[in-house]
Parts: sequence; C-alpha cells; structure tokens
Amino acid sequence: MKLNVAQKLIKDHLVEGEMEPGKEIGLKIDQTLTQDATGTMVMLELEAMGVDRAQTEASAQYVDHNLIQDDYRNADDHLFLRSAANRFGLYFSRPGNGVSHPVHMQRLARPGRTLLGSDSHTCANGCMGMLAMGAGGIDVAMAIAGEPYYVKMPQVWGVKLTGKLPDWVSAKDVILEMLRRHDVKGGVGKIIEYYGPGLKDLSAMDRHVIANMGAELGATATVFPSDKEVKRYMKSQGREDEWMELKADRGAKYDIDEEIDLSSLEPLIAKPSSPGNVVPISEVAGEPIYQSYIGSSANPGYRDFAIAAEIVKGKSIAEGLSFDINPTSRQLLTKMVEEGHIASLLGSGARLHQAGCNGCIGMGQAPASGRNSLRTTPRNFPGRSGTKEDSVFLCSPEVAAASALTGVITDPRTLDMKCPKIKEPENRNLEAEQAMLEAPSSETDGVKVELEKGPNINSIPQMDPLEDKFEVPVLLKMGDNVSTDEILAGGSRVLPFRSNLQKISTFTFEIIDDQYYEKSMNMKDESGHVVVAGNNYGQGSSREHAALAPRYLGLKAVLVKDFARIHLQNLINFGILPIQFANEEDYEKIEQGDVLVFDDIREKVQNSKEFDITVKDKNETIRVFHELTDRHLDILLAGGVINWIKDKQESEV
Amino acid sequence: MKLNVAQKLIKDHLVEGEMEPGKEIGLKIDQTLTQDATGTMVMLELEAMGVDRAQTEASAQYVDHNLIQDDYRNADDHLFLRSAANRFGLYFSRPGNGVSHPVHMQRLARPGRTLLGSDSHTCANGCMGMLAMGAGGIDVAMAIAGEPYYVKMPQVWGVKLTGKLPDWVSAKDVILEMLRRHDVKGGVGKIIEYYGPGLKDLSAMDRHVIANMGAELGATATVFPSDKEVKRYMKSQGREDEWMELKADRGAKYDIDEEIDLSSLEPLIAKPSSPGNVVPISEVAGEPIYQSYIGSSANPGYRDFAIAAEIVKGKSIAEGLSFDINPTSRQLLTKMVEEGHIASLLGSGARLHQAGCNGCIGMGQAPASGRNSLRTTPRNFPGRSGTKEDSVFLCSPEVAAASALTGVITDPRTLDMKCPKIKEPENRNLEAEQAMLEAPSSETDGVKVELEKGPNINSIPQMDPLEDKFEVPVLLKMGDNVSTDEILAGGSRVLPFRSNLQKISTFTFEIIDDQYYEKSMNMKDESGHVVVAGNNYGQGSSREHAALAPRYLGLKAVLVKDFARIHLQNLINFGILPIQFANEEDYEKIEQGDVLVFDDIREKVQNSKEFDITVKDKNETIRVFHELTDRHLDILLAGGVINWIKDKQESEV
Repeated sequence: MKLNVAQKLIKDHLVEGEMEPGKEIGLKIDQTLTQDATGTMVMLELEAMGVDRAQTEASAQYVDHNLIQDDYRNADDHLFLRSAANRFGLYFSRPGNGVSHPVHMQRLARPGRTLLGSDSHTCANGCMGMLAMGAGGIDVAMAIAGEPYYVKMPQVWGVKLTGKLPDWVSAKDVILEMLRRHDVKGGVGKIIEYYGPGLKDLSAMDRHVIANMGAELGATATVFPSDKEVKRYMKSQGREDEWMELKADRGAKYDIDEEIDLSSLEPLIAKPSSPGNVVPISEVAGEPIYQSYIGSSANPGYRDFAIAAEIVKGKSIAEGLSFDINPTSRQLLTKMVEEGHIASLLGSGARLHQAGCNGCIGMGQAPASGRNSLRTTPRNFPGRSGTKEDSVFLCSPEVAAASALTGVITDPRTLDMKCPKIKEPENRNLEAEQAMLEAPSSETDGVKVELEKGPNINSIPQMDPLEDKFEVPVLLKMGDNVSTDEILAGGSRVLPFRSNLQKISTFTFEIIDDQYYEKSMNMKDESGHVVVAGNNYGQGSSREHAALAPRYLGLKAVLVKDFARIHLQNLINFGILPIQFANEEDYEKIEQGDVLVFDDIREKVQNSKEFDITVKDKNETIRVFHELTDRHLDILLAGGVINWIKDKQESEV
Repeated sequence: MKLNVAQKLIKDHLVEGEMEPGKEIGLKIDQTLTQDATGTMVMLELEAMGVDRAQTEASAQYVDHNLIQDDYRNADDHLFLRSAANRFGLYFSRPGNGVSHPVHMQRLARPGRTLLGSDSHTCANGCMGMLAMGAGGIDVAMAIAGEPYYVKMPQVWGVKLTGKLPDWVSAKDVILEMLRRHDVKGGVGKIIEYYGPGLKDLSAMDRHVIANMGAELGATATVFPSDKEVKRYMKSQGREDEWMELKADRGAKYDIDEEIDLSSLEPLIAKPSSPGNVVPISEVAGEPIYQSYIGSSANPGYRDFAIAAEIVKGKSIAEGLSFDINPTSRQLLTKMVEEGHIASLLGSGARLHQAGCNGCIGMGQAPASGRNSLRTTPRNFPGRSGTKEDSVFLCSPEVAAASALTGVITDPRTLDMKCPKIKEPENRNLEAEQAMLEAPSSETDGVKVELEKGPNINSIPQMDPLEDKFEVPVLLKMGDNVSTDEILAGGSRVLPFRSNLQKISTFTFEIIDDQYYEKSMNMKDESGHVVVAGNNYGQGSSREHAALAPRYLGLKAVLVKDFARIHLQNLINFGILPIQFANEEDYEKIEQGDVLVFDDIREKVQNSKEFDITVKDKNETIRVFHELTDRHLDILLAGGVINWIKDKQESEV
C-alpha cells in the first residue's frame, strides 16, 4: 500500500490498534519535551511513579514560560527542574535559551521520530518530518517512562502547496489562510500533511510557522516531509548526520484533499478575539495600534525577525507606540546581534526583551486598556495578553513591522520600499549553545541526584488502589456543564501552586462550595466522598489538577449523566471511578448528603459494564454504567497511572 | 571667601535663608526628573495645581520602573505619563530607553545646575558638577511649578582622592569603601564632595557610580567638579557646548575632611542585608551563589558591562547559575551590541533583559529561596529582591563576572587572566536616541493636550482650605512609633493604585483598624475626623500617600506626642493640621470616640505657637503646640500645597 508521510510515521511507531480513522491506537514515543509551567508536575509524577531513567531517545526540559521571577517560586522551579532533568536523564535547557519549540528544532528534532510534549504547540516540530503532538502532563510522564501514547487514529488531510509566495507575504499567511478557510475546529481529529511543489520555497523554519499553528486549527498534528531543505537546516545545526529522508510514496492518497496556490495569497490578519477570525489586511488597514509585538513559537525564525529589522532600519517607530521584540532563542538572538539586526531594531525604538514565551502567554507586555495590539503570536483569545478586555490582532512580521512605523495597521505592500530579501545564516555558534542545553548526566550519576525542592514544591503523596467496598457521602450535587475551571480555578491566585498539590487542593470546587475543602479534608482518611453531576461534566480546559486535587482530598467516584472526554481520561489517570447513570432520571433520587454504598466494586467493574450501587437508609438502588477499556480498568484498579507504572516498573526489576 | 563646589552650587541657587549648616535654605531648581512609579502622582498633582507649563530649564519624565506589564495598568500609566509630559512641557523618555539616572546624564545633565528628582538615586548626577537631590513627589511637582526646594543647609564633607585604582578594583569599590568606613547613616545632613588628584583616572560614569550610592550613605547630595573629563563625556554625547567648568576655589575649605588613597583599595563586597555591611572580598570568597546580576544605576556605565563581557568572553558560566544582564540604557545596549560585548555575554550563557531598573527594585529576577545572589545594584535591604528571606551581596562588575564563571564568590584577582582594559566609546548613535527621548511640545500645542487616563488613573479631587472651626471625633487613638506602612501599606496589593487616590485610600490604616475606611467615609462630608498618637508618629518610608489618602478621607488634624520629620512635612503639604501635646500626660485624657473642638483655629495657629482645644462633653481643655514656619502656615491655611500653588498661579495671571 502506498503511504503518505503521516501514515509512515504512525506505522513505524504503532504498538497497539489498527490504523483506521477513529479507532484508538498506541504509539511508541521517541522524544518528549516539557516546559516549566507544566514540567514541574511531570517531574513530580515521575518521582511518584518511581521512574529511574527516561526510556526515550531524547527528552528535554525547557524553561521558557515562567521567566518573570517576582519572588522565589519561579527560580526555585528552575532549580528543581534542573535537578529533575539530571535525576531522570533529560536534557535541560536553561532559562534564557528560548522557547521550547524552536530550541528543540535546533538541537534535538529528528526526521522519522515521534515527539510528545506537554505544550499545545509541540506540533510545531512536525516541520522536521516528525509526528509531534501536544498532550497532558501525565501522558508525557508516561511516555518518558517508556509507555505508548494512546490517541484515536486521525484522518490524514493532504494540503498540496503550489506556486510561490509573493513579496510581503510569508509562511504566517499560509496558516492564516488555513484558519480563514476552516476556523479553529477545522483540524479536529486530523493530521494535516503539507506537500507539493510549493514546499521548495518554504524553509524549515517557515514550515515551523505553519505547523505550530496547526494547534489553532485543533489538529492532532501537522507533518511535512523530510527533504533537502530539512537536510540543509540540520547541516546548519551541525547535525547533518541525524538527517534522513522521509517522503510520501508516489501515488499515496489522503483522507481529505485540499490545495493552496501560494502565489495567490495576500497579507492576512486575525481580528480579535479568535485565531480563526481571519480577513485580508485591507479590511482593517488604518486602525490605530498601541503595540506591535514580534516573537513567539508562531514566528520564531531568523527571517521573521530579520525582515522586521530590515523594514524599520534607519527609521523611527511611531510616537507613543510600544514595539516589543521577543527573541525566541539564544541562537536567534546571537545571530541577530552579529548580523546587525538588533542594532536596527533598537535604533528604531524597539524594546528588546529576554528570550522566551513572554507576552504570548501573558507574562508581561500586556497592552494598554482600550488599545489595539498587533502580534505575530499564535493566539488572541480574550484576555490571553494579560489585559482582560484586550484587542489583539495576529499577523506576519512584515505586517507588524510596517505597522510599527506608521502607528496604524498597515499593508506592507503600501510601504515605499522594496521587499527585503533575507538570507538564512549558515554558520551558528553551536559550541556555546550546546553548553546551554545541558546534556543528561550518566545513569550512574543520575540516580544519585537529589531533587531540589524549594518550599513551594511538594511530592505527590502515595495513593491507594481502588477499594473493593466503600460507603461515601455525596459531598456535592451539581448540575450540567460543570467546567474544570469550576472544579479547580486557574489564574494568578492558583497557578503559583501548580507544583504543590497540597496547596492547590485548597482551591478545589471553591467556586461551587467554599466549604468543600474543609469538609473533604475532615472525611479524607475516614471515608472519602463522591460527587454527583449532570451532563458534560468536566468541560473546558484539560488541566490534570482538576482530577488530581479532588483525588488528593478523598474523591473516590464521580457519578454523572455524561462526561467531557478529556476530563474522563484524567479521572481514570488519577484513579477516580467515573460512572454514569444508566437511567438519567435516577439523578433526581440522590440528594447532597446521601451516602452511596459501593460493594464488590473491583469485581463488578471488571465483569460488567453495568452494575448497581445503593443509597444508604433510602432503600434506593441506582443502576450505573462505565465505558472503560481493559487498559483503563488496569489503571483504575491500581489507583491511577502513577501506581500502575510503579507496579510495572517494580515487576520488571 | 573661598568656596568649594557644593557651596558654589548652593550660592548660585539660594533664594531664601543663610548658608549656615542646619538652617533651612530655599534653592532654585533648574532641572527635575521623575520616574514612572512616582511620576504618575506628580503629574496628577500638577493637574490639581492647575500648572500650565514646567517652569524649569529641563524636566524629564522617565519610564524605567514598572516595565512588567501583566495587565493594562502599567501600559496605561506609560501612556498617561506621555500625555502629561506633552501637556506640561516635559521630556518623555520611552519605555526601553533605560534607567532615569544614566539617561539623564547622557542627554540632559549640565554642570552648574540643580536637579531635583522623585527617586532617591537622583544624587547620581552629582557626577556632572550638578547639585542633584532626591525628594518626595510633591516637592518635585512644586519644583516643576517653579517653586524653590527647601532643605536644611548641609555640612560639606570633602573627600580627597589620591593615587590610582589597581587592576580589578573599580569605582564601586570606592563607594563601598565609604560605606565600610561610615555605614548607612554616615552621610546624613551632609553633601559629599570628591576632589583631588585621584579624580583624573575616574571617568564621568565612574563618578556616577560613586555619586549614586551617596544615597546609601544617607547624604543630601554628592558633588564632583566639572572638569575636562566631564567635558570629554559631554562631547561624546554631542553636547560639548553645554559644558562649563566648575571647580572649588584654590584653598577652599570643607566642614569635614577625609582622604582615600585609591591605590590602597581592594575588591569589597557588602554582605546581606545592608549596603553598609562591607568587608574585603576575601572574607566571603568561596561562598556558592545562585545568581550573578549586572545592571542598575549603581553600575550603569559602558565599562561596567564591557569588563564583565571581556571576563566571560569565550567561556561558559557555572552550571545552574543565572547570569542576569540588565542594560541600563538604550545607548549602552546599542553600543554593547556594536562592540561585540552582548555576543560575548550571550555566548557565556547570560540572560539578557530589557533596559530598565528591573530586579534592582524587585521587578523580576528574584533569587531562589535560600540561595545567594551577587549584584552590582545599590541596595540589599531584606526582601528588596522580591524574595522575602533573600541573601543579596553587593559588589563590582568585576567580582560579579568572575563569580559567574566559578559559581562561588570570587576575588577577580585570582582569575587566570590579565585585567581587561576598556576604552570608552567616543561615537554614539545619537540621532536615534534623541527621537526616543521625546522633546517637549511647544506651549501652544501643549495646553491643548488632554491627559490620557486609563480606568485606574484618577484625578486628585479638590480639597478645602483649613476650616476655622470644626468639631471632629477621634477616629483612632494609637500608641508610639506608628509607621507610614501602618498608615498606608506598600506591597503588590496596594502599589498598583498609586495613581488612583480613591482606590488607594481604601487601604488607609487597614492594619490598625480595618473599619477605618468605612467609618471615615461615613463622616467625610459631615464632620471629618482626627487621629491621636504617641511618639515618633509617621516613622519609616517617606510615601506621600500616607498623608494624601487620610486627607482624602476627611482627616483634619493629627494630635501626637511628636512627629517623624518627613511625615510632618507631608501632613503640612496636604493641609492636615499637625499639632502636639504641650503636656504629654494629656494624651491619657483623650479616648477614641471623643469629639475634639477646634475654635478660631485659623487665627490661633497664626498668632501663637501654643493654643487650646477642648474635649466636648468632658469639660477638658488640652494645650497643644505646633512648629510651623510662616511658609508652612501659608500652605496649611490654603489647604495644602496643591491649593497654595493653584492660588499663586491664579493670582499671577
């Protein structure tokens, strides 16, 4: 059978299931990446699992999100992550090295490999002929421990690129065009594979721009072939020997077909407040802006910054405007300094920030109230900039730089200058850079490393396997559409405790019942508790703390009309029994405070999809069901993936 | 009479009083500087005063403190400050230009002038043959409005410099030596004047380093002569025509005499947690560090960064260490880029931050808990770094860079290399820089400018002149040593409202009585209120909000055993009657809730230093006194300086 690139990557890594769209498959993971905001919990999970060493080809821990140290906590996290990287055999990328995705591409990405990362833009490295996917923290912890990653086999969506981008139009406009056509749900359940003659004028970094924002289409992954351009890029990184060719078989088919004629594209812009809100720039040209922002994993390349520098060189930015330059890597910044581009940007009036994610995730550079901000970043969801009622537009570096000069949204084709041509630099100061990406210690040294835990970092406590019999009160009865934000809020009050389960648990269900924490703690060791809810329980953000924190507080089972998909997975992962009403009207029979009796439960869940529980002192029987696979059941009975892996590791010794 | 430099500067600007140490003198102010953290209130004060245009030779508004925009508020402040600079005829230095003191030195400082700034390190520009002093916000607002600045005539302390600094010892060690000898109170009531043959090898920027940390000695000001080196420096800034010579008369005397032989100095270091805690580096060499930090107005010069770059060039910093580079100005950063120093620093593993005050005032880069931080900044008071129980050492750039390489506190003389020689660059890209320091608009344009006030910026409401008769309850009776922190807390909860009097007032006296705000608001318009306290009332930080906020809430008089000096001045400035018990035992006669009766009070305060007030329904008479000068009385009767200036401006029209 003739295979496309996505199918080849999947076939090479398939350890379970069939390659039939919609069916669950298990994939071997070669590489992982974690960043600091999600990585601290991943490292605590590895500790709790008893993992000795990463089982992957290469795993890297980056520090790029929490770079603003306004107290000891972020600095402590950085030191903890470094010690954990040493302990478990991961690469450690020091603060100041830059954003995980471009740094991974520079130093570790390899064609033909799978990459799983606890960051939604992990898909960016699909530009290197890899199958690169974002996932939850515990999934990445499992991958580091050598476990496969389970996902529904996606459809493969072939996008044939023809023609050549005109002057002033660049890779960002290609992905904005995809978002214009298909909006933010268009890629769900799909791998997007770009191919065709148009590829030849897109550099590896251009492809990174396109693959990165596959996340905004909701795609499982984006893949590009590994061709001569990938080889050239790897050579410039001193890693030519790690290159391999990876192309679709001649005549390979796609589940869905699409075509983009690059030569027909024009500068595009995503209006507030969705990356799918894309229009030609002419529709908004002339709107005044307060800020022009360049950086992020959505435009991380040398050319992205260099073209902006060439556009503003020798000129001054508009008065009152903030022109924020956010280098995406140490390598990029160093090269930009060498080639004079930083001088051009500073001379024009730019503010140069440290290398990292920065304002793209609301860490600084929030716009003034009621003002427009123009950014090369991937997302403009409301409030993501840090300013609650913000007005953020997404665009290419060409548009951002042109607009910085005029102070209004500007079509760069209207500038009185020729479009600058940027030559990718071939030589890089790789020696210094390698030192900054600290290689894993040897295994013998690693096991001796102690994890450095500052006062805000706490280990995950031991959790018990699923009990066979329990009588537990219904501590909360909730309605439909309870979100993970209601289960465990985000925001600046709560987030600093992401590596401190004991502390973050104090916020659990706080929005619904501010007595929940106290009540649950009182019965934690004696009985534990359950919660009951209606439809679509656990919708919204995929945060795993929304399962881990209530579990820590003694939540044993969740009984609902139905679950949101990701939260269901998280409940299983952390050993909480997820069951549904067989008859939805039974929901009315249970009141908050009732005690539910679960008998012979380990046997029941294994033997049948449906079984009974009783309401104590009420003489009521409630029929419930579950949708757990055998793998799910193993995990659940063990008390969650942490125990499950731990048992497995021990039995392998 | 033969005069020293300090005396010449004072004589040239004396508008009131006699030059006798300890006596109050009034000085004409030629230049002012404000930074963003204090400047927003200064601009609101100018608005409330009805000031049309700055009456100074040059006033500049800098944006260097609040550069971390994690919501709209700082960005709004920047836009407000820009509009206010346009409105009132001030220079505006854009965010990203750098720290006020070095930028002022580069672009505006002139020998022979006075400079008043709402930042304690304003004294740094004493390096340019100026009389440069830090002061409260309202003092600077008054100076901008053309009023003199009142201060007690200081003693002049002549410090004769002889010899030449050895290799690896630099200007920072000179001021650390002064702190070692005299500690943090050694300069109180004094102007320090450096002179002698040792000056010839100290560049203007070296002198800035020494003058800047005069603040840590508690000195009123630090002055240097304006000599050929100042001329050379101004020429490099394209401002040679603004230079004038200013030297002490041959044979001039000083009130106090001191001598430092530069050739005898060695690298020094201030241990936690006071700048006065100075020891030779040998006493702490070998202590492990987490962070090496270069930047701030205490080491802002090209040579300070260049020597660090030369030391680490081609090497790698210690593993796990954070090497934080904080450029102090756009000019410096640009030059460092051009000369290859930024490349050296990045190559060694440094983190490059935006130009500004940054970690020096706890805005980012807080150290990890329990770790040592080595900094070239001026202050290491406990918690100033952002980490509550921090451990910060102060040192020269030579020590910081040497220690970055080894990971422990290191005497740079023990490095296996020759001491790098740094040549000050002569040419600068001044054109771009001038555009970044926006010159004042013309007066006709200026008066048309509307102040841009985001939702967190509120005008100061109109306040009434001192009433002649009032009956007011004692809302609080407090003990001794009430600090301005208890009157109005600092910290991240309160500080964001520094430009919003209405909001910041809600925190008034919160620590002492959390009902104070509500109670005072209830009686604000009907009667107002008074507070009573013991000794040393208003000690601690000089924040003017501690007088302005209670005044806004209706505080009419403060009756105490005695006042802390600066808070007394602030009470007068904001029109609150400050009176003291003539007989301290009368303190016992008043209870919280009593109503005090003030009769004919306008006449009484003018006619006598002592008078009576009565306690209603108690048949008690309390003898009180005040220590107000005629100038104070004018201000108090008008209802504070804002009204006083407003009346004056109107009567002049």
